[in-house]
Amino acid sequence: MSFARLSSLADAIAWIDHEIGSCRGAERVPLAELSGRVLAQDLAAASDNPPFDRSVADGYAVRAHDTLGASVYNPLTFRLAEASAADLATGLAIAAKVASGSPTPRGADAIVLPDHVQHDPGAAIVEIIEPAIAGANIDQRGDDFSRGTLLLRAGRRIRAADVGLLGAAGIGFVEVVRPPRVRLVVTGADLYQAGQKLRRGGVYDADTTMLRSLVERDGGSTEIRRVEHRVPSAIREVIMEPAADLVIVVGGSGLGAEDVPVLQALSRLRPDDDGGGLAIHGIALRPGASAGMGRVGSTPVFLLPGPPISCLRAYELVASRGVRRLAGRCPELPYPSRDFMTVRKIVSSIGFVEVWPVRRMPDPDHIEPIAAAPPDRAGSLLAAAQADGFVLVPEASEGFPPGSRVRVYLYEDANSRLDPNYL
Amino acid sequence: MSFARLSSLADAIAWIDHEIGSCRGAERVPLAELSGRVLAQDLAAASDNPPFDRSVADGYAVRAHDTLGASVYNPLTFRLAEASAADLATGLAIAAKVASGSPTPRGADAIVLPDHVQHDPGAAIVEIIEPAIAGANIDQRGDDFSRGTLLLRAGRRIRAADVGLLGAAGIGFVEVVRPPRVRLVVTGADLYQAGQKLRRGGVYDADTTMLRSLVERDGGSTEIRRVEHRVPSAIREVIMEPAADLVIVVGGSGLGAEDVPVLQALSRLRPDDDGGGLAIHGIALRPGASAGMGRVGSTPVFLLPGPPISCLRAYELVASRGVRRLAGRCPELPYPSRDFMTVRKIVSSIGFVEVWPVRRMPDPDHIEPIAAAPPDRAGSLLAAAQADGFVLVPEASEGFPPGSRVRVYLYEDANSRLDPNYL
Repeated sequence: MSFARLSSLADAIAWIDHEIGSCRGAERVPLAELSGRVLAQDLAAASDNPPFDRSVADGYAVRAHDTLGASVYNPLTFRLAEASAADLATGLAIAAKVASGSPTPRGADAIVLPDHVQHDPGAAIVEIIEPAIAGANIDQRGDDFSRGTLLLRAGRRIRAADVGLLGAAGIGFVEVVRPPRVRLVVTGADLYQAGQKLRRGGVYDADTTMLRSLVERDGGSTEIRRVEHRVPSAIREVIMEPAADLVIVVGGSGLGAEDVPVLQALSRLRPDDDGGGLAIHGIALRPGASAGMGRVGSTPVFLLPGPPISCLRAYELVASRGVRRLAGRCPELPYPSRDFMTVRKIVSSIGFVEVWPVRRMPDPDHIEPIAAAPPDRAGSLLAAAQADGFVLVPEASEGFPPGSRVRVYLYEDANSRLDPNYL
Repeated sequence: MSFARLSSLADAIAWIDHEIGSCRGAERVPLAELSGRVLAQDLAAASDNPPFDRSVADGYAVRAHDTLGASVYNPLTFRLAEASAADLATGLAIAAKVASGSPTPRGADAIVLPDHVQHDPGAAIVEIIEPAIAGANIDQRGDDFSRGTLLLRAGRRIRAADVGLLGAAGIGFVEVVRPPRVRLVVTGADLYQAGQKLRRGGVYDADTTMLRSLVERDGGSTEIRRVEHRVPSAIREVIMEPAADLVIVVGGSGLGAEDVPVLQALSRLRPDDDGGGLAIHGIALRPGASAGMGRVGSTPVFLLPGPPISCLRAYELVASRGVRRLAGRCPELPYPSRDFMTVRKIVSSIGFVEVWPVRRMPDPDHIEPIAAAPPDRAGSLLAAAQADGFVLVPEASEGFPPGSRVRVYLYEDANSRLDPNYL
């Protein structure tokens, strides 16, 4: 059996973008837990930074005006004062020894570096042998940012430098987007957990933990519910329990005999009873064609195929976008991409966006597809794990001949060797 | 005061690569916590996958040989049997109805799709109207991987597909590299925490939480120790306490009056007493020039400047590499990089690798440097936070004129829009 009509991947993405927005509600977290979270509020500075005029070097604070005319041939004498007590606004020629980072004494507007000062140990005076420029070696209060400066906007995904910036501004707690609660409804009998001995017909459950890792990567929290016997009412009950922001039903997405109860559970959730049902079922994507999506009330529901490679691809290319949108993240694929030359043919069927695992070659600009076994299918988990990334073959394409330039989505390109020319 | 001789950034990196290896010792984690961790063992499959020959479609299991000559004009009759009980090795023409994913009955070597079968409801026989090819619609036991196949090697940083692969192989617990314990020794008085009211001369502590976020990003765990009064013996004592895999001393890295006690604490850790001391102090890097590194016994120690932007850059370009090496991670910068055209001049001083924050322009191939205030310094935390990435200006360069192509290390390029042509 096959789908009468497949939706395009573009239509599936458009549905998600239209139906799913960022989670309402925020939570307050301390700065130490902020990295990677998404701001739910604009953040403005509550104070100036630096909070005072400060010296950026060890030296002698002076009024620049008092040093006019100083030279080796005309050393000018200054009375030495304690930095903490000094007030250079008195009009007298006073110099105060200051350490890097400490506040400049009142009235001082320049720091003279020790190279330009003659200071005999223990002496109460110093001689300055070069004129200072006003502002020299001083960071002025508010130079970095002043009170009221917008530091970061709502929607920003926090990086380490931001944590430093907020720390410097004295901000200790911040409102961030609450992680969406994603309920994984894993359906099907004969799924075994690691450590259990497989019985005939049983397979180890690869999907649940894989999806849990993926959902957490995308900013969601997971709640795992198993429905061993695919009875429509049991599945429906678990889907409809409150408190999930998104539900992912795993397994039973196809059109086979074993899939019927899952489809019944979802198709009965019609617009006329509870505002739901499958809006899209069957996507021109391989692996992953039997994926679907819809709503139960206001909650988006995704239906993912059970076979792990299909589950992986359908999550990555379709459902993950919904999780990232709820989490306030950038909805696009969380992989860098760039163009490579394929050294071998990539074959694909017309009518499907096909996901082909590829491997980088010793030549940094080249890739090759990883052959799947059997060769008529677009992949296995082992091929996905051996890959450095993947290529998407467009719906209308039969693939790419050797020598083509193809866009590769890379799993681990985010590690950049420092170019030796830059050291 | 300035450093008599600065080490090059390349020398600092070479020291780290020579002196710091991966943490000894591993820990055992369940699959659900595996994502992002680094394998400490090779992992081979303990069983075949699929664990049995299985149908990839709903259909009728047969011996392909029995279907020879079948056509619409010559339908061949098969006795229908239960899939669970069927044994097609009997030599009789038997067909067993099977669901996608279920084991093929003994003796069957092909699944005939329902389109090629005439099956009246309730009938005990079916007619097959097209010959089947041996192997059709069957995934054979071990097609994906067989027992003993090396699935993943030690040193691998685990991705979600790997979690699926290990799940499918029935692996539940895995040995991974233990997170290195990084002790942050934060020195200096007048550091205030968020919520405290600043007093004159005091600043909010931006470094501690920022470094904690960065160390955790790089795979380490942190332990924070504050030494408010910079007394050499107190600093030394905290550094030398056991159980840290790496120590980062923050603040007091310069050559000023306030820095002396920290340098004394570190310089007294000489090779002849406990095998340590600062091997490198002063790096041709801006911001961050006063950073240093050495050992205490077998423990690497980094010394980072206190001013937050200098602390950030010195951690990112120097110390972070040590943390990533200990964590078994790729030691390179955890940012993707690629070439852009700068639309404005980037100025830099000869003799330093300078880190310039840059911002992307509406033209996706263009960037501009973010002006720091004051303009004679290479940045502020606000500029770093406003940046989309940074450029490194080589030691021997005075910068780049407008129109130059420059390598940019990007903070957030790991989000790829799907090319509409691919949908």
